[in-house]
Amino acid sequence: MKLKNGAEYMESLRKINPLIYYKGKKIEDVTRHPATAPHVRSAAMTYALAADEKHRDLATATSHLTGRTISRFTHVHQNIEDLLKKIKLFRILGQKTGSCYQRCVGFDGINAVYSVAYEIDQKHATDYFERLKTWLIKIQDENLMVVGAMTDPKGDRSKSPADQPDPDQYVHVVERRADGIVIRGAKLHMTGAVNSHEILVMPTTALNEASKDFAISFAIAVDTPGITMIFGRQTGDDRRDNLERIDVGKPTFAAVGGEAVIVFEDVFVPTQRIFMDGEAEFASQLVYRFAAHHRSNYGACKTGLMDVLTGAVSYLTQIQGTAGASHVKDKITEMIHLNETLYSSSIACAAEGWPTPSGAYMVDTMLANVCKQNVTRFHFEVARLALDLAGGFIATMPSQYDLESEDVGHLVKKYFSGVEGIPTEHRIKIARLIEAMTGGTALVESMHGAGSPQAQRVMILREGKLDQKIKLAKSLLGISDK
Amino acid sequence: MKLKNGAEYMESLRKINPLIYYKGKKIEDVTRHPATAPHVRSAAMTYALAADEKHRDLATATSHLTGRTISRFTHVHQNIEDLLKKIKLFRILGQKTGSCYQRCVGFDGINAVYSVAYEIDQKHATDYFERLKTWLIKIQDENLMVVGAMTDPKGDRSKSPADQPDPDQYVHVVERRADGIVIRGAKLHMTGAVNSHEILVMPTTALNEASKDFAISFAIAVDTPGITMIFGRQTGDDRRDNLERIDVGKPTFAAVGGEAVIVFEDVFVPTQRIFMDGEAEFASQLVYRFAAHHRSNYGACKTGLMDVLTGAVSYLTQIQGTAGASHVKDKITEMIHLNETLYSSSIACAAEGWPTPSGAYMVDTMLANVCKQNVTRFHFEVARLALDLAGGFIATMPSQYDLESEDVGHLVKKYFSGVEGIPTEHRIKIARLIEAMTGGTALVESMHGAGSPQAQRVMILREGKLDQKIKLAKSLLGISDK
Amino acid sequence: MKLKNGAEYMESLRKINPLIYYKGKKIEDVTRHPATAPHVRSAAMTYALAADEKHRDLATATSHLTGRTISRFTHVHQNIEDLLKKIKLFRILGQKTGSCYQRCVGFDGINAVYSVAYEIDQKHATDYFERLKTWLIKIQDENLMVVGAMTDPKGDRSKSPADQPDPDQYVHVVERRADGIVIRGAKLHMTGAVNSHEILVMPTTALNEASKDFAISFAIAVDTPGITMIFGRQTGDDRRDNLERIDVGKPTFAAVGGEAVIVFEDVFVPTQRIFMDGEAEFASQLVYRFAAHHRSNYGACKTGLMDVLTGAVSYLTQIQGTAGASHVKDKITEMIHLNETLYSSSIACAAEGWPTPSGAYMVDTMLANVCKQNVTRFHFEVARLALDLAGGFIATMPSQYDLESEDVGHLVKKYFSGVEGIPTEHRIKIARLIEAMTGGTALVESMHGAGSPQAQRVMILREGKLDQKIKLAKSLLGISDK
Amino acid sequence: MKLKNGAEYMESLRKINPLIYYKGKKIEDVTRHPATAPHVRSAAMTYALAADEKHRDLATATSHLTGRTISRFTHVHQNIEDLLKKIKLFRILGQKTGSCYQRCVGFDGINAVYSVAYEIDQKHATDYFERLKTWLIKIQDENLMVVGAMTDPKGDRSKSPADQPDPDQYVHVVERRADGIVIRGAKLHMTGAVNSHEILVMPTTALNEASKDFAISFAIAVDTPGITMIFGRQTGDDRRDNLERIDVGKPTFAAVGGEAVIVFEDVFVPTQRIFMDGEAEFASQLVYRFAAHHRSNYGACKTGLMDVLTGAVSYLTQIQGTAGASHVKDKITEMIHLNETLYSSSIACAAEGWPTPSGAYMVDTMLANVCKQNVTRFHFEVARLALDLAGGFIATMPSQYDLESEDVGHLVKKYFSGVEGIPTEHRIKIARLIEAMTGGTALVESMHGAGSPQAQRVMILREGKLDQKIKLAKSLLGISDK
Repeated sequence: MKLKNGAEYMESLRKINPLIYYKGKKIEDVTRHPATAPHVRSAAMTYALAADEKHRDLATATSHLTGRTISRFTHVHQNIEDLLKKIKLFRILGQKTGSCYQRCVGFDGINAVYSVAYEIDQKHATDYFERLKTWLIKIQDENLMVVGAMTDPKGDRSKSPADQPDPDQYVHVVERRADGIVIRGAKLHMTGAVNSHEILVMPTTALNEASKDFAISFAIAVDTPGITMIFGRQTGDDRRDNLERIDVGKPTFAAVGGEAVIVFEDVFVPTQRIFMDGEAEFASQLVYRFAAHHRSNYGACKTGLMDVLTGAVSYLTQIQGTAGASHVKDKITEMIHLNETLYSSSIACAAEGWPTPSGAYMVDTMLANVCKQNVTRFHFEVARLALDLAGGFIATMPSQYDLESEDVGHLVKKYFSGVEGIPTEHRIKIARLIEAMTGGTALVESMHGAGSPQAQRVMILREGKLDQKIKLAKSLLGISDK
Repeated sequence: MKLKNGAEYMESLRKINPLIYYKGKKIEDVTRHPATAPHVRSAAMTYALAADEKHRDLATATSHLTGRTISRFTHVHQNIEDLLKKIKLFRILGQKTGSCYQRCVGFDGINAVYSVAYEIDQKHATDYFERLKTWLIKIQDENLMVVGAMTDPKGDRSKSPADQPDPDQYVHVVERRADGIVIRGAKLHMTGAVNSHEILVMPTTALNEASKDFAISFAIAVDTPGITMIFGRQTGDDRRDNLERIDVGKPTFAAVGGEAVIVFEDVFVPTQRIFMDGEAEFASQLVYRFAAHHRSNYGACKTGLMDVLTGAVSYLTQIQGTAGASHVKDKITEMIHLNETLYSSSIACAAEGWPTPSGAYMVDTMLANVCKQNVTRFHFEVARLALDLAGGFIATMPSQYDLESEDVGHLVKKYFSGVEGIPTEHRIKIARLIEAMTGGTALVESMHGAGSPQAQRVMILREGKLDQKIKLAKSLLGISDK
Repeated sequence: MKLKNGAEYMESLRKINPLIYYKGKKIEDVTRHPATAPHVRSAAMTYALAADEKHRDLATATSHLTGRTISRFTHVHQNIEDLLKKIKLFRILGQKTGSCYQRCVGFDGINAVYSVAYEIDQKHATDYFERLKTWLIKIQDENLMVVGAMTDPKGDRSKSPADQPDPDQYVHVVERRADGIVIRGAKLHMTGAVNSHEILVMPTTALNEASKDFAISFAIAVDTPGITMIFGRQTGDDRRDNLERIDVGKPTFAAVGGEAVIVFEDVFVPTQRIFMDGEAEFASQLVYRFAAHHRSNYGACKTGLMDVLTGAVSYLTQIQGTAGASHVKDKITEMIHLNETLYSSSIACAAEGWPTPSGAYMVDTMLANVCKQNVTRFHFEVARLALDLAGGFIATMPSQYDLESEDVGHLVKKYFSGVEGIPTEHRIKIARLIEAMTGGTALVESMHGAGSPQAQRVMILREGKLDQKIKLAKSLLGISDK
Repeated sequence: MKLKNGAEYMESLRKINPLIYYKGKKIEDVTRHPATAPHVRSAAMTYALAADEKHRDLATATSHLTGRTISRFTHVHQNIEDLLKKIKLFRILGQKTGSCYQRCVGFDGINAVYSVAYEIDQKHATDYFERLKTWLIKIQDENLMVVGAMTDPKGDRSKSPADQPDPDQYVHVVERRADGIVIRGAKLHMTGAVNSHEILVMPTTALNEASKDFAISFAIAVDTPGITMIFGRQTGDDRRDNLERIDVGKPTFAAVGGEAVIVFEDVFVPTQRIFMDGEAEFASQLVYRFAAHHRSNYGACKTGLMDVLTGAVSYLTQIQGTAGASHVKDKITEMIHLNETLYSSSIACAAEGWPTPSGAYMVDTMLANVCKQNVTRFHFEVARLALDLAGGFIATMPSQYDLESEDVGHLVKKYFSGVEGIPTEHRIKIARLIEAMTGGTALVESMHGAGSPQAQRVMILREGKLDQKIKLAKSLLGISDK
């Protein structure tokens, strides 16, 4: 691993030059700009844990390609134990950042493209798998961060890619050259994009023959000419821009992963970096493998976040003198219960893993959908319970400027105090942390990341094996099944 | 009514001089400061509707004290029809502001103090009721805005007012003079305080004889010497401070009502403005009447807000081409269903109203608690459904600056477009509106305004008449009831 | 009112001869057969309350047709107060029977047909309204019980009435004669049919011109030739057949209303009893008015039932020594809360009532759908909470025969006892009552009575005025509405 | 394994003579009595699968004591794979019986007592572990069915065992002899007791030194003198007693496991069969290990049941012509989703298993509580959805006697038909199956089996590691943790 820790990761980011806009202006250094630095720090934690004796077993792996020690985030799962370690690592990262560390997107992308590239080759005698392995060894050896890029803008959602009035609503090939292809389009919601080294593009939906030009997967560096990123707003981002320490909630890390639009304006991709080109019949499989891996993560990383939130609320009730009330204990119990239910699903996805023909291990896809579906519900409920226990002052507290004001600071300290002996500032800090973790971007990410709720429901029904279930019922009733 | 419309109301605010801090600095003119102006505009809508032919019947009333036409917000309910009109007015105000118009707090305070002052006089031969009526006629004639002030800081919640290490955690009398009393303490979360004319103080909890100095109710002008207000932060307030039009979500109105801490540092209150002083045994009744009125409102005003939210989501699905999907229609149905369930409760509270000895009408208190309890749940669920249908871009959209940027504005317009013919700007505006209405302050207000969820549960059990219900069961089983 | 009390009602039933089958055999006397007698007793309560000084104001009304005092169940609502009294009466009846008293179906049918017959006449110059009034005066004067008959068998639900392979799946006219019509088909789930005097038939769905023969409404006596009823099974009916007193749960009354299939095999209906014949365009209005009235009832009668259930559970926790546990109190609070939420909706439906052209008052239809929709959810949740608090023994208790056995009765008494001083028999009786009220038929009735859940959702969306809501959102954003 | 299949199991039951009462009379042959035979058949399935090539890998294991092939139900888990196989076996058994196969109770009892007996010996130098192994080898070799007996009557639940007015409310030692002890008391809700060979008694709660006589664990044959069983009623049991084939719902198997009270009236237990006697400090550990194993099962067996229910509902919607409706598909999706969520938890409990000092593997106890807690909620919701889709006729259908009646059978067949080509009888059978699986006993068992909901919540909070979670929050805020 070339990049050995968080500092080296940050240093590496300063050496590349992606074109990034935020609030109408260019961001020159993502590691120092107040809007992006907290996200960089979260991603840096994935590097830091690999360098930490205590977490190394989870945070690293042995490459099946080279035998060398690599970051787990660049590994292809070789067995169920790998899948389980991923889940445990993700919960710890969630606990340590209280945020999104972004790097799972590329991780899942690598695993999905790896297994599908192998299968395309088997059918079409192409050499995608070799290309991918060559690229992957570089990623592993240099320990690069990859953003997995899937979601297209989609324009009019009632129309398919080929039927859009504007074909650029889905990333597609606009020109084929001897040495590569030219790409146009955009990818939305690209978590970690502004602080990644490489982009791994995948199609966003099942495709038919008429949509061959949309069936494209490739990898390129983030500062390839023609690429523009626009970094999205998040709830409370202005507090961060203004460098308010307490009022941002999480001073070091961000609400969740920073997302960007990645626009491809006639970007050239050399042949060696192309892993799918026109094999439309494999698009749905690629989408689904990525989605399943990604969905199975949410019961781990979000559980880590909600561990933090549960701790924050628990401490706040101690400060306020309500920790002993039975309804308080019951609501904290419910927070834990919902959280561990999510964790169960992630563990089960891994424990029921299975090998693809390439040897890469997949999670149980039914359970992955179930896991993510529950996240879209339980994170809101956990947030609701947290806000219930926190109390109304979380939405009416004066700002840090008032807390530090010579005129009114003493009044804020007096009238926002709790039980004797704990500084008012603790109460305010904890409340701002809860505020940051229970609304806006943080919840929307749980809702839509790795696919919107309805996407999971479609798959749950599809994989529900209703025919077999009908047979079970008929069998109990002695109804012959013909 | 001296103040005849919104403009006159705003003008009147410029003539008074309350001491208000926000982010460490004084606010000189609440009608123009970006943090407070949107709240002023919401409150102004209560004045505007009274001047609007279409809404005058709901927005005004005939004073039972003077026979003159007054704002309904200064009226004492004389019958069930008054209670019903209040509910209908509140839903319209919610629809027109998408926000909190704040003035119901003083309205409910007036009604609560009115009926209790009468009953104290009956028992103790005091003259609070006359004092209150004198003050109220002034409020009605001048059409002043009153902030009802109930919630004390409470400090260590495991201790009663008299047991707090710092007695100032509950507003109390520190000195009694021939012509009045001197007050110390604070009230938190005071909705509309910074743009009110008068403060109507009430105790915050049931009190016993040992806590007589906390059993105090009075009214004074907001700019009385010794009063300091500190205006609280809200989610997304910085966007407003920076005058971003689109990104604030609701350009004209605020997320919800602006809340302030009101600090009383040895404030003198003249005898004529005192409506309770030491009659501790009436404190719980006063608290409860205020709370019941206030809780019954939430199924009306929040319904108005959620009408807006439902419309916003519905339009967004049209823009995105998803309006016809069955799961979309089902979720919008659910939003309407939950919303109308809340409205049912508010209507029922009013329809089951009853006269107090003073003649003032109270709402059904059981149903008022039930109403508010449901608001604490359903607003979150409606928000969750809205965010589900809106899609993930709501949390990753570029800022208004990018939309308007010469460099990347065309990319934002291209890649955030929806169905043909509707400007991308509509999509973004609607999304920002939904963002503003579904997280942070907006939801916390629904949770804790008019009392936290547990407060309602305590009352629901207390008023649940379990003894009578046990008799019903025994009766069906022929078990004698002795 | 000819029939003045429950005894006279029962006596009247013995004088008519409907053809009723149950478990393959004829029922000769519904007032004494163990399967039907409990239902008769519930319906008799509607007669008894009219004779009870304490409840007469609610249980009777003054006929707007004759000026005579009549049972409220035969009344046409003349104002909002009538609607509110109905709701209050229904809750009391639910409390007193813990069951379905059945008679609201005919009551709602009368009100629906009354208003629609008037409107048909206005359009088509028919005389249905006069015919109806003539029949209704008889019903009022004799105080007869009417079963409102709406639900057809429907056969293949993916096909409309006219497209069914078997046309008899919807009640229809098979022959037209000079003096009347001949009818074939069936009505399912006919609550109270076996102990009613008259059947009031209505169509079950919106119809088009091609389905004129299905657009039929009429009234006839239950013992008209050609009518056969088959009485349906209910959960636990065998315990009743075996005359086990304790184990049935409610010894006097039944689980819910007893339902029957009413089959019409070429039944002749004289012209004077026909209130709609072929005016297909009015079918949906008739269905909807009936449904709205009926749906608005459920928040009243079921609330009465759940008052009983809440009392039963509350008493059981006292017997078991758990009444003081905080989770027990919280769950009972939730039962009350959900119950009163339902009651709110029923009250609101009435309070927002409005006059039809005929003068008959309708409930608010949106709120009626909302009310019923909540019943389909909350009754299950209340039952779940009740079973949680009751404890597992409710499903494993020995029978009454064991309780009374010389061999093992002493063991049952010893090992099913609770706190000292309360007989074990109380605990067992209460547990059997809870068992009877929380599973099977009792819950299914709440789910599907007055229309299945999806039927309400369709109407909630249809009446949701999305266009107006979209305007509200646009207006807040300054988006012009063209 | 002496007993090689279901037939041999049944034959073995006919050779023993337990004293069993049901409805006041003795049951002579549980394999043939209509009340118990369906339960015997379910338990027999555990024997049958061991003889079935297809399921042998899951249904059998290799004894770590003897190296011989044994029924998995008599096995002590030696690793995570054993735990996972148990879960998979249980889902299949649930699918094949649609019921409770009862034998997991003794299975979990064996595993709990095994690990605790070892630990008692380590501390007290007793020889319980050897005694247990001797007994267990007999159980394994003869393949006997064991009922794990834990739940005491408890009397006044506000009092501890030693404080009960009647000491017999908890099983206890009444006499100590040279060769054994004499036992008095009872165990309630004993699933499978009437068709087991042996009873394995355990204490029911944590105990202190004052309650040493209650800290008792032992095994004896079901027909030991002094033991009396009283078999409990279940919902719909009379239909079974009357041998109605269709109306019972599941003709071959029962609603859930048949439960009995086991009364011990001064029963002598020889020393060699005692596995704990007075070591009160180990009682809570024994209870908790049993409970954790047992709770982890519910996400497997109930999932199997709900697979059947989902299939039944799915088939019914096909028969009724509603299978294509979007709300139908959505509700079936939800049923699957909830079901697979439960399964996730069971899988996760096993995947996170860990070895006790004895070598026996335990499940993850936090996740076991979470699993069972969800079962207490989701089974009700799945039932509610099933009843929604089934339609109201499920509660109003005529009986089998009517279906077969010469008088009205043709009417039932005509008016309860669905789409063409599927016999009406299928519709009725499926509906009766759904009825049997969605109310009464079936749901109560999911609620209270393996501990009532509150029992899990207490443990979830206790194992929630709030201190660690508070540290996570403090760490993110830079609050030092002293």
